Amino acid sequence: MTEKTAITPATHTAAPAKFSHGVRKGNILQVAGQVGFLPHVDGRPPTPAGPTLREQTLQTLENVRSVLEAGGAGWDDVMMIRVYLTDTAHFAEMNGIYNAYFEEQGLKEAPAARTTVYVGLPDGLLVEIDALAVLG
Amino acid sequence: MTEKTAITPATHTAAPAKFSHGVRKGNILQVAGQVGFLPHVDGRPPTPAGPTLREQTLQTLENVRSVLEAGGAGWDDVMMIRVYLTDTAHFAEMNGIYNAYFEEQGLKEAPAARTTVYVGLPDGLLVEIDALAVLG
Amino acid sequence: MTEKTAITPATHTAAPAKFSHGVRKGNILQVAGQVGFLPHVDGRPPTPAGPTLREQTLQTLENVRSVLEAGGAGWDDVMMIRVYLTDTAHFAEMNGIYNAYFEEQGLKEAPAARTTVYVGLPDGLLVEIDALAVLG
Repeated sequence: MTEKTAITPATHTAAPAKFSHGVRKGNILQVAGQVGFLPHVDGRPPTPAGPTLREQTLQTLENVRSVLEAGGAGWDDVMMIRVYLTDTAHFAEMNGIYNAYFEEQGLKEAPAARTTVYVGLPDGLLVEIDALAVLG
Repeated sequence: MTEKTAITPATHTAAPAKFSHGVRKGNILQVAGQVGFLPHVDGRPPTPAGPTLREQTLQTLENVRSVLEAGGAGWDDVMMIRVYLTDTAHFAEMNGIYNAYFEEQGLKEAPAARTTVYVGLPDGLLVEIDALAVLG
Repeated sequence: MTEKTAITPATHTAAPAKFSHGVRKGNILQVAGQVGFLPHVDGRPPTPAGPTLREQTLQTLENVRSVLEAGGAGWDDVMMIRVYLTDTAHFAEMNGIYNAYFEEQGLKEAPAARTTVYVGLPDGLLVEIDALAVLG
């Protein structure tokens, strides 16, 4: 029996319901949908890194990375990244931010497969990202 | 060679196309997108449990559970739950229903990671949920 | 340590950002979101197979198949197919195309679980599909 472990980085805001920011079981790690909330500060409600796509995308990717690392993984282990945007006009800008982020992370190759679709998100949020990793 | 097995709970309405309500291969079980249809009755078309978010969310979660159990799994095995709502105004209410459901299931911990996004669904449906489980 | 391998069918248009059309690690293969772009021709921008749901759905499924095959897999290995449409009115027609496609592929059984939701896609695109396969 392999144990399933909840992953809850200390910096994260509490999940708004009975779910975990990440779960690992054996060599599979699933990161829950992350948005661009800043690290948690006691007494402050969840606060986006800023109103712009750039601020939110970078913070969202950092939040995904925090969950991966708290679960013993990294970007190299990620198989699939799901990107949810609210506006098709944001695609090119998001790709630029995304590429620059992974270059800064020192990844020479594309880290994963990806699907991008355009959905509704709560007011003020422009991007949500989740990820599936396979370790080992 | 591990066999892939289709999972089709007897209570479920037939899938509207060539896909299965669930598939298991080795220790991985994928539940297809479930909606709030009542258990199948011969001669009756697929019928939502009711018009409300509460009725549909509870029935949808039960439909996910039926597939998990027909495949030899349960909520404890679930790694990821994807929730599709049609209206951001439903988020808080869905979370309340979701939390109460899992408390009634006797789960002390968050069962899984989760992503919630807001999409279009066929007329009258307010919620769709799918799930990925890793057994063992 | 199992190696993660990017899958890039020669016929595919280049991904518009730092991601791969598919990734395989061990027995898990993830296909990125595919759309109905025709095989790549040097000097031609990405071009949909046509304006209709039929043309785009068939091309999209072929593009998924190309990635599966380039990664050593096939439809029989697929556990989950995610279908993104832009219009709920397309559901019945997509199902007909989908069923006929898999019959032509010689698959007697439903190949996988599936979730269909309705989202925005870039201008002119009516369908996007991704897939998760477990080999072996």
